[in-house]
Amino acid sequence: MKFNCNKSEIIEAINTAQKGVTGKSTMTILQGLYLKAIDGEITLIGSDRDISIETKFNALVEEGGSLVLDSRLFGEIVRRLPNSDIYFKTTENNTLEIICNKSKFNIVYMNSDEYPELPFVNEELSLNINQEILKNMIRGTIFAIAQEETRPILTGVLFEIKSNTLNMVALDGYRLALKKSAIDNDDEIRVVIPGKTLNEVSKIMEEGDKNVNISFTKNHILFNIENTKIVSILLSGEFIKYSSIIPEEYSLKITANRSDLLSCIERASLLAKDGNTNLVRFDIGEDDLIITSNSQFGNVREEMSISLEGEPIKIAFNSKYLIDVLKIMDEDEIVLEFTSPVSPCILKNKENDNCKYLILPVRLLNN
Amino acid sequence: MKFNCNKSEIIEAINTAQKGVTGKSTMTILQGLYLKAIDGEITLIGSDRDISIETKFNALVEEGGSLVLDSRLFGEIVRRLPNSDIYFKTTENNTLEIICNKSKFNIVYMNSDEYPELPFVNEELSLNINQEILKNMIRGTIFAIAQEETRPILTGVLFEIKSNTLNMVALDGYRLALKKSAIDNDDEIRVVIPGKTLNEVSKIMEEGDKNVNISFTKNHILFNIENTKIVSILLSGEFIKYSSIIPEEYSLKITANRSDLLSCIERASLLAKDGNTNLVRFDIGEDDLIITSNSQFGNVREEMSISLEGEPIKIAFNSKYLIDVLKIMDEDEIVLEFTSPVSPCILKNKENDNCKYLILPVRLLNN
Repeated sequence: MKFNCNKSEIIEAINTAQKGVTGKSTMTILQGLYLKAIDGEITLIGSDRDISIETKFNALVEEGGSLVLDSRLFGEIVRRLPNSDIYFKTTENNTLEIICNKSKFNIVYMNSDEYPELPFVNEELSLNINQEILKNMIRGTIFAIAQEETRPILTGVLFEIKSNTLNMVALDGYRLALKKSAIDNDDEIRVVIPGKTLNEVSKIMEEGDKNVNISFTKNHILFNIENTKIVSILLSGEFIKYSSIIPEEYSLKITANRSDLLSCIERASLLAKDGNTNLVRFDIGEDDLIITSNSQFGNVREEMSISLEGEPIKIAFNSKYLIDVLKIMDEDEIVLEFTSPVSPCILKNKENDNCKYLILPVRLLNN
Repeated sequence: MKFNCNKSEIIEAINTAQKGVTGKSTMTILQGLYLKAIDGEITLIGSDRDISIETKFNALVEEGGSLVLDSRLFGEIVRRLPNSDIYFKTTENNTLEIICNKSKFNIVYMNSDEYPELPFVNEELSLNINQEILKNMIRGTIFAIAQEETRPILTGVLFEIKSNTLNMVALDGYRLALKKSAIDNDDEIRVVIPGKTLNEVSKIMEEGDKNVNISFTKNHILFNIENTKIVSILLSGEFIKYSSIIPEEYSLKITANRSDLLSCIERASLLAKDGNTNLVRFDIGEDDLIITSNSQFGNVREEMSISLEGEPIKIAFNSKYLIDVLKIMDEDEIVLEFTSPVSPCILKNKENDNCKYLILPVRLLNN
């Protein structure tokens, strides 16, 4: 193998492919980056088998070939080289020579034969989504996935297309996040994508007009983002029928300023650390929402103006769940719907109907 | 106690005083900030007994008093309050009421009687140093203090005034850092200041023309920086007679560009991680410095132009010590002096004689 390229191009490719090297796999070769040179093009792959990231860039290839390099070391070396052309050449003893100006490295590589093949995904049956929309939908749901592996399906996000609408849903047993977007596709799709995969996809996508191209097999999903392909397993099992959980009716609806509400809850939560309950109490009156909390260190009372339709209510929450939602919602004015002190609360934008968040209240003895 | 003040002023004071609350002391009350209100002035103190930081700001005090508040909680509450006036008032049950707009906290406080008194330091006998110069001297020496507590005196920096010169010296058995500055003071002072104290002093000082005022007792040092006083213990014991360690003569002197040398050594050190030796080899020739290193993963060769006076030499170093020094030196052109492969290397600025760094080489079997 023999090629040369500019530092900035290979660095970008390394940064992308390294997102697939997670250390999760115990196979030594998966601590490496797969590098293939062929006809003016370099391919880099990083993988932990659950997720594989392949990216390509142009280079002056004099002699093709493939090998696997320790991902961390290779990345550090290239990052530290001067901003100049870099020359790569295999020499004897399984060694890759890397030359840039007056720096010369000889790095032992691994045999690429041992590197696992990427799952094959037919790219002909695919759908297109705007990258910025998908990024936004990931951000708006991923925080609500389950952190524990006790119910693996909940560590993923449901990706559902029906009636020309894309729904993404995450839930962890205490809260649910739903984002919607109109989509120009009349397929029926219902898959569950690992949260980790969506995290990496989100980092690789860019703001702006460009599309990401998505294909499926029974067990895998492929994201095609310009020069980069991300192949990931899908989670198996049945995702909860979320629509039956979300109440359609309510007996009380309040409209509030999102950032004011967030500040009040964040302050109240400072005294809600006792026993990790994060408990904050809402006392919703005619014109005011009173939020209180207390611990052995003292107590706090926050008051804010709201507008109310329905009957006043007292209800309590884990403040963390409210804070998570209020931070990622995007409108200034939001709506909260309540039915009873023991029924879920629904949060929505006041205007745009593109999201819905559900949070279970904490049942209090004196309710 | 009853007073009110603007959020921004109390936040700045809390940030400063909290630097004294380190969690090092086991006394519960030292997890608190001491707060005293008197005649238009609030005093805040944070302390772990080794270091105590007292800072003052103006406030509208209606009723004097003093108390101790949990440092972390108090800081978080005030930080999260709106940018507005904050009203403080003690109420029954050892509680401090904090009101800002529509937020109201009641925080349990501790009795200030239990808070230890600050050591008394006579401020009449004192010396003045420009804050920026002192900051610069701390930065130029503190990295070389010993990290382990096996020889406590080496965890501090020698602060020595003689012949109208301030010398600051740190060493850890493998390297030595010396910074010098002319000072308008003909006292003879020789004390050792804990590294941690200098770190905090450095953070509190500002860039610019202002002076810091320093006073001593036998066991303590006081830094007076505008509204803030930092009182710290001094380290006891005899500091090494550093001037006898620094060789005055050399057989080889090279002049090199500092940032080029730093880049070469940083790259070479990527392959010098084996067994944590960080070993890099210098082969100093007539016009070129060759730096090499190797590990089980491969090898690296760096080459850079230098100008040389004396005989070529081969010598090896722990790259970390060279990198630490090259990062904090401030001139572009620097000088390195060598005597033999087993004698210390001296690094200096080419022009300004305000610093001197010594690094012991690593003795190689084939030297």
